[in-house]
Amino acid sequence: MSELLFNKDRFFDPNPTVRKIAREIYDSIKDMPIISPHGHVDPIIFAENKPFPNPTSLFLIPDHYLFRMLYSQGISLESLGIPTIDGTEVESDPRKIWQIFADHFYLFRGTPSSVWLTYEFYEGFGIKEKLDSKNAQKIYDLLQEKLQSSEYLPRTLFEKFNIDVLSTTDAASDSLDQHKKIKESDWKKRILPCFRPDGVTDLTNINWKANLNLLSASVGTEITSYSKFIQALKDRRQFFKSMGATSTDHGVFSPYTHELTENEAEAIFQRALKGKSSADDAGLFTAHMLMKMAEMSTDDGLVMQIHPGSFRNHNPIIFEKFGPDKGCDIPMQTEYTANLKEMLNKFGNSKSFTLIVFTLDETSYSRELAPLAGHYPAMKLGPAWWFHDSIEGMIRFRRMVTETAGFYNTVGFNDDTRAFLSIPARHDLARRVDSNYLAELVSKHILDMADAMQIAKDLTYNLVKKTYKL
Amino acid sequence: MSELLFNKDRFFDPNPTVRKIAREIYDSIKDMPIISPHGHVDPIIFAENKPFPNPTSLFLIPDHYLFRMLYSQGISLESLGIPTIDGTEVESDPRKIWQIFADHFYLFRGTPSSVWLTYEFYEGFGIKEKLDSKNAQKIYDLLQEKLQSSEYLPRTLFEKFNIDVLSTTDAASDSLDQHKKIKESDWKKRILPCFRPDGVTDLTNINWKANLNLLSASVGTEITSYSKFIQALKDRRQFFKSMGATSTDHGVFSPYTHELTENEAEAIFQRALKGKSSADDAGLFTAHMLMKMAEMSTDDGLVMQIHPGSFRNHNPIIFEKFGPDKGCDIPMQTEYTANLKEMLNKFGNSKSFTLIVFTLDETSYSRELAPLAGHYPAMKLGPAWWFHDSIEGMIRFRRMVTETAGFYNTVGFNDDTRAFLSIPARHDLARRVDSNYLAELVSKHILDMADAMQIAKDLTYNLVKKTYKL
Amino acid sequence: MSELLFNKDRFFDPNPTVRKIAREIYDSIKDMPIISPHGHVDPIIFAENKPFPNPTSLFLIPDHYLFRMLYSQGISLESLGIPTIDGTEVESDPRKIWQIFADHFYLFRGTPSSVWLTYEFYEGFGIKEKLDSKNAQKIYDLLQEKLQSSEYLPRTLFEKFNIDVLSTTDAASDSLDQHKKIKESDWKKRILPCFRPDGVTDLTNINWKANLNLLSASVGTEITSYSKFIQALKDRRQFFKSMGATSTDHGVFSPYTHELTENEAEAIFQRALKGKSSADDAGLFTAHMLMKMAEMSTDDGLVMQIHPGSFRNHNPIIFEKFGPDKGCDIPMQTEYTANLKEMLNKFGNSKSFTLIVFTLDETSYSRELAPLAGHYPAMKLGPAWWFHDSIEGMIRFRRMVTETAGFYNTVGFNDDTRAFLSIPARHDLARRVDSNYLAELVSKHILDMADAMQIAKDLTYNLVKKTYKL
Repeated sequence: MSELLFNKDRFFDPNPTVRKIAREIYDSIKDMPIISPHGHVDPIIFAENKPFPNPTSLFLIPDHYLFRMLYSQGISLESLGIPTIDGTEVESDPRKIWQIFADHFYLFRGTPSSVWLTYEFYEGFGIKEKLDSKNAQKIYDLLQEKLQSSEYLPRTLFEKFNIDVLSTTDAASDSLDQHKKIKESDWKKRILPCFRPDGVTDLTNINWKANLNLLSASVGTEITSYSKFIQALKDRRQFFKSMGATSTDHGVFSPYTHELTENEAEAIFQRALKGKSSADDAGLFTAHMLMKMAEMSTDDGLVMQIHPGSFRNHNPIIFEKFGPDKGCDIPMQTEYTANLKEMLNKFGNSKSFTLIVFTLDETSYSRELAPLAGHYPAMKLGPAWWFHDSIEGMIRFRRMVTETAGFYNTVGFNDDTRAFLSIPARHDLARRVDSNYLAELVSKHILDMADAMQIAKDLTYNLVKKTYKL
Repeated sequence: MSELLFNKDRFFDPNPTVRKIAREIYDSIKDMPIISPHGHVDPIIFAENKPFPNPTSLFLIPDHYLFRMLYSQGISLESLGIPTIDGTEVESDPRKIWQIFADHFYLFRGTPSSVWLTYEFYEGFGIKEKLDSKNAQKIYDLLQEKLQSSEYLPRTLFEKFNIDVLSTTDAASDSLDQHKKIKESDWKKRILPCFRPDGVTDLTNINWKANLNLLSASVGTEITSYSKFIQALKDRRQFFKSMGATSTDHGVFSPYTHELTENEAEAIFQRALKGKSSADDAGLFTAHMLMKMAEMSTDDGLVMQIHPGSFRNHNPIIFEKFGPDKGCDIPMQTEYTANLKEMLNKFGNSKSFTLIVFTLDETSYSRELAPLAGHYPAMKLGPAWWFHDSIEGMIRFRRMVTETAGFYNTVGFNDDTRAFLSIPARHDLARRVDSNYLAELVSKHILDMADAMQIAKDLTYNLVKKTYKL
Repeated sequence: MSELLFNKDRFFDPNPTVRKIAREIYDSIKDMPIISPHGHVDPIIFAENKPFPNPTSLFLIPDHYLFRMLYSQGISLESLGIPTIDGTEVESDPRKIWQIFADHFYLFRGTPSSVWLTYEFYEGFGIKEKLDSKNAQKIYDLLQEKLQSSEYLPRTLFEKFNIDVLSTTDAASDSLDQHKKIKESDWKKRILPCFRPDGVTDLTNINWKANLNLLSASVGTEITSYSKFIQALKDRRQFFKSMGATSTDHGVFSPYTHELTENEAEAIFQRALKGKSSADDAGLFTAHMLMKMAEMSTDDGLVMQIHPGSFRNHNPIIFEKFGPDKGCDIPMQTEYTANLKEMLNKFGNSKSFTLIVFTLDETSYSRELAPLAGHYPAMKLGPAWWFHDSIEGMIRFRRMVTETAGFYNTVGFNDDTRAFLSIPARHDLARRVDSNYLAELVSKHILDMADAMQIAKDLTYNLVKKTYKL
């Protein structure tokens, strides 16, 4: 057995000057409440507030960061209990799966997954040993026991985690019943929906027609035309807003923006209804819908987020058997300067529009995104995203963005996670990395300490709250 | 009031070993004269040698780094006194504008603007307080008072700044009257023109025809054909050379180079004269003119500089109201290996040609530019440019370029500025960053101290002087 | 004369904490045997085991890293004794050439060439002075004397270098006679061939037809059709395998993969035989051959390596006079996510296929390559390659790759060199850089020491041996 490494100075520069300053900055923000303005936690866990069933289904099954790495080393998804679309049997013994996970835990050395899990095990469950083949079942027992106790109920953890606001992500047609249930309960924490209409704005989505039918149902009228479609989206945005939403989210392949005429849009929509739209149609329609969403945001004030650049479901063997979100989404080069031009030209100078842009293509940080955000009033930069939500990824973000866009055109941290238990671990990591970055600037006499302390607070709390209107 | 942070070890690594070496290297170069081979200071200020009118018009109005950041946070350009094209009224009280600037000075935290201004305030004006809302007017008064004194006249400052040579940038048709006036005065400092013919080589320039007429006037003959155009450019280059110019500058969207036949070039030129040239025509014509400029440089020895990759005037609302250079130029991905091939194949092996290439796309440093400069005798790498003229930007440049191109295929620092007062601040920053980079190599035993000291001198003075033929 | 800088802590971070840990990690791996799974040393030197003729022909003539840098500063290749294709006379006095090299040795400051040569001079020849104009001939004498002694015979050096396995790179038609000679000798070291069929799979190769004839000769049957071509390649792979090969290598312009029908492939092949294939044909044929090679690798178990993204022979003046590999290969932007899709979809989930992918485009590390290798079981990441085989290049590789792909989807170090004497220098550098990277993670409490020590051994020895099946 080896001791679990969980040092109080973790992630800080080993230089004593920098470390001392980093610690001082970090100490001033570490206990600030968590604002999580963008994530994918299922609200049902708070609506029902039931105990999590077991360590495997809590930590491993929903976390594609973990099982994609195991898969990359030749471990089948079946043996990890990842459910198949057609219900073909997969491993169902959570202890067996946990053992495989523990046997291969060394694969995560140096990755954020290892860092987050260490936090969760140590801080969340008091585990002081490094997970390995030998102690796998003992640790499973320990986790399992705690998960059954009332201290580990979702709402109790939410409070313990000191979360101010948590945003979920929800389809345009979502009833938001779970959110209603939470609101109507005696538990008074803020769990807000976020409007994500990708399922109906992306004509290449294999469930587009089904999604459209759900949207029709949600507005109580059959959507037979583009204009009805637009009206339905406006209505749903109002409904989301009434349920507390302050933002929308748009996952697109390309950030290309371009407005079609009403007739062009209607023609494409009609082809799509007949199942006859082309790839070009779909690209144009998405570009147009980004324009319409910006227009609606300018009207209703919902903050617009764009997450582009992922080639979804790159591996059809996995997609056909296990479905989406199985670690097979691979980034591609993404262009912003030309693609966002039409949107920024039309709405980017407006004070009533807020656009937060993310990237998986780090080359755009200093070349395109920082210069754009450093000019257009409406545009802000989302934090280092997905593969770049990591120690090195965050450092690269700050180093490449700050000198051109400053700190005040960024919007703090997003945990962007399905894994509720990892939220404090992720925010802690972000706070440490930002503290260390600021400490570097202080130690190089680029910032004074008072400014650094103020910036730390702004990045952790004030900017998030302000930009997302929370 | 807080003290202005201006540490003598600023920008150096906090590690004591590195810092000690960095300081030693920096001390050996800090007092070397400034050579400014590429910049945009208006020569009229030295020809007339009048006092600068007030702090706002000196520091803020001409500096798009400053007002673009303010604009990005919702402050209108009108309220900052930026003049409009049609003369619509804007804020004219310099004190009011200064107050807005001071109120939002926190936006520049961590940016080069903040670092440069700190140097200018502290070193140039003896200000020891950080600019804020409260002391804004007091600092304004202090600046204003000094600006009226003879110590702050442009020529006096030029001498105090220890500038050996300063290059301006001038249109092909420029009379260079201001340069003449300086030359003919009793003030014997070197202020040299640089030949920048973009206004007549870029057919998409909205003033192309007007610029061509100015060129006609400057050579005293109507330019009615491509061959007359070429002859005019040759004549103007000779004139610039006779006035001391040693270089030309070419700001292009793409660095694509391609030679047309005389007939092709003539045909495009004739279409352009009739206002009927297409976007393709313009692209080809620029590519061809880069080839012609390289040919002329090989003949007349003027050093050729190419600055590509900026999408100019991205925001038409600003462009139509305020004109160019208002912080709305956004970089785009730029390709060099294929685009420069024709030029490098034809002229790149020649010893009588010098080509200095810049980039806004940092991905090209290690992938394309360093390998090209590490092979072709004519090609050298310009320093980190524009958005990358910053502490982190310069570090990235050295780290990504040095191992492939060495130090001796680079050309020292360019301040590239319109802001005369910021010149010493910018060179000081560059000298510090280079000193620190060299100190890192020494502390890792990659370079010995003697070599590091020699390289520091070469980067600061010798390479600039030699490459720009000054 | 100045002392040659060769510090025992070279390349380690100057921070005492990091340096101490780095040293401890490095000490634990520095004496491990060298595995060189990918390189370009000519096997004849071991088959013949003759003394190296002189310092100039050993160090300079075969090393395009060296003479390209000299060429970039205006020194002609003729004066450096680089042989011409047509046999035109070039400088033949090795002492004169050595003097030029010494006179310009300062150009290599801060480059890996300088670091490698320092190691070779100091460790290999006991030279304690920095090469310069004055001591050039003295050092030449010293080198020359040692090269004639039996201690400096190739086989003796191979043993002294503690090389376990060395892989060469060989054309598909190669007789492997030198390998046979070594095998049949009483010298029992492992020098293995690697199957590199680029000369016959790239239809744009100017010697394609001649290469094909050699391939015909090697299989004893005229290759008059695509199907015979495929059979010949299969036969040659078997032959290479029987001679100990465990891998293939594919240098391609683009990593585009796409399977043609047999008819399409045959048609292109027939056009190529008639000298009538187009550029499109060639692109498609290469894409198809990558698919066929992956298929064969899945069958015969040879590890497949893809090295894409170099624009070969960028400078025709040099190519026509001196031929290929003269420092005129310039990288280009390279796309992997879409290009490798067809291959990864068909073979990437297979456990009997191993694909090692390299890049010259560092932007693909975090954006494309790490996510792909972090998902597909067959795919692994080759180390920092060519221009990036350097201190900074390796650091960037680890920083951008590790958090997404982990350490275990990488494959250790490749020296990839023609310069036999530089092999220990290159592996030493790689071990130091990895040790220092791991020390940084330990000092930031991201890894514990036990894990770091294990990873160091895995990167140095275990992963190479396992992935390359050695």
